[in-house]
Amino acid sequence: MTARPEAGEGAGHDYRDDDLSSWMNRQGRRVEQALEAVLPAVVQVRPGLGENGLVEAMRYAVLGGGKRVRALLVYAAGEISGAAPDVLDAGACAVELIHAYSLVHDDMPCMDDDALRRGKPTVHRKYGEAVAMLVGDALQALAFEALVAPLRRPAGDGRPIVPVGEMVSVLAAAAGAGGMAGGQALDLAAVGARLDRRQLETMHQLKTGAMLAASVHLGLLSGGLLTPPMAGAAAAYSEAVGLAFQVVDDILDVIADSQTLGKTAGKDQAQDKPTYVSILGLDESQALARQLAQRARRALEPFGSRASRLAELADYIVHRVH
Amino acid sequence: MTARPEAGEGAGHDYRDDDLSSWMNRQGRRVEQALEAVLPAVVQVRPGLGENGLVEAMRYAVLGGGKRVRALLVYAAGEISGAAPDVLDAGACAVELIHAYSLVHDDMPCMDDDALRRGKPTVHRKYGEAVAMLVGDALQALAFEALVAPLRRPAGDGRPIVPVGEMVSVLAAAAGAGGMAGGQALDLAAVGARLDRRQLETMHQLKTGAMLAASVHLGLLSGGLLTPPMAGAAAAYSEAVGLAFQVVDDILDVIADSQTLGKTAGKDQAQDKPTYVSILGLDESQALARQLAQRARRALEPFGSRASRLAELADYIVHRVH
Repeated sequence: MTARPEAGEGAGHDYRDDDLSSWMNRQGRRVEQALEAVLPAVVQVRPGLGENGLVEAMRYAVLGGGKRVRALLVYAAGEISGAAPDVLDAGACAVELIHAYSLVHDDMPCMDDDALRRGKPTVHRKYGEAVAMLVGDALQALAFEALVAPLRRPAGDGRPIVPVGEMVSVLAAAAGAGGMAGGQALDLAAVGARLDRRQLETMHQLKTGAMLAASVHLGLLSGGLLTPPMAGAAAAYSEAVGLAFQVVDDILDVIADSQTLGKTAGKDQAQDKPTYVSILGLDESQALARQLAQRARRALEPFGSRASRLAELADYIVHRVH
Repeated sequence: MTARPEAGEGAGHDYRDDDLSSWMNRQGRRVEQALEAVLPAVVQVRPGLGENGLVEAMRYAVLGGGKRVRALLVYAAGEISGAAPDVLDAGACAVELIHAYSLVHDDMPCMDDDALRRGKPTVHRKYGEAVAMLVGDALQALAFEALVAPLRRPAGDGRPIVPVGEMVSVLAAAAGAGGMAGGQALDLAAVGARLDRRQLETMHQLKTGAMLAASVHLGLLSGGLLTPPMAGAAAAYSEAVGLAFQVVDDILDVIADSQTLGKTAGKDQAQDKPTYVSILGLDESQALARQLAQRARRALEPFGSRASRLAELADYIVHRVH
């Protein structure tokens, strides 16, 4: 496990269970430890063929960075479904591995050609383009391997039944052409184009929203199959949170500096990409983000108090500064 | 379904069920139809954002080409396990989608930089590098979605239990850092290096052998969990077939022309890559391929006559001309 000292820690063990930032720190360390366990160790490289850099680069791409928003959504949704901790860890690792792979590929020269990610050189700058492509490819495979690791026994071993096929399907659909990869393709096609707000929303719902929604969905499915009203409420929450996440990303791209973001600031404008700020202006974008957080909270009402972490995460996503 | 006229067809319906080439044609058409059904339709592209090319390029990368060796291994192994046809179709699609994605990424400028594949321009030459990367990414996700499509109901719906988690794990492990992607990384590191035969074998077992073995494994798992002796026999068969496949690939790279291969011939030598032919010479490589086919046949003895298709496929792999 990578040690990550956090504000407020080390002064004792008196943090309250109901404090969001303590919970986020705790769950962030939990997924970091789970990712560490799921990633191949550098020493496992085949004898006689030397160090090929792939495993080291995979670890570099995944560990020790990021807000882990997707993992937090899995854990928060797991508080509603009452899922087993190891099943939630598997889902949390899976969504973070998909996210990490997408960043590696997105940063490559044929895509955004970015040099800085999470405050460090991007994978292709450090390890070369060929290794970066393979890192992304291998991380996507690892996401599915991690997802099913605690579930790959057949039914009848005494554990509660988890709908493993459904979970794999949810992750794959969110990552593929009808989700994240499809959104990336629309994003590419949109450079220099004049998208209206509806078109911009569609693009972001695929590119970012689909994986955020999958995170919530996986956290719920980890406790068993969903009823249609549960699935509907979760989808309404996820749609609002997904849009809020992107609106805030666009705002931060304008108002924050690269050091705070850990990635190149102002690049949307430099690349002439349409954003909420360019379409709505800064003030209206900030108002929209707050409205979306409220809409997300309202969608959770059927779940009652078990959904309090998900509600708090909606607020966090709107008020984050990086 | 894409129509693919085959030699010997159209003259009647008198082909015998026990003829390998008729079986291969029939199963080849079957997986083509299943892939066609699993791939998104071009018309499904989001309204208002126009044609982004991703789905069209995915179909271009997958349909209407290739020997479908991996799919054939799934179906042939399915004759041993007595699996349901739709579960075998799912496995056959999954391994072909992983294979297709690997070719798209492998052909890109940062990897092999190839212009010709299956007799057509490579995906990045036709659609650009960014789309090619996303095509590969989306096809990998689709492979997992296709694999679980017939299996994503929870246990208890009256269908025979298929170990879906185990199947996802087998596919993911074979595609990832401990399999195909890891082998690609070793291959990259080996350009210009003097590998010995043992090192060359390790590289190819990962790069090609892992997915061929996964194909056999999936065909068997499609009928239920494996006993250790079954798994051992399948692994011995797969190891021999995987090596034979690569030895023959190296031989064909030297003796065949680009038109017959459907890809650039002689490129291993041009890129100074170590091959069986460069290490053993042509005659000894051909003798090795025949020995490996015999070893593969012997490994199948515990399965009796139900393994006859797998045995025939081992011979086909050694005697193929492209």
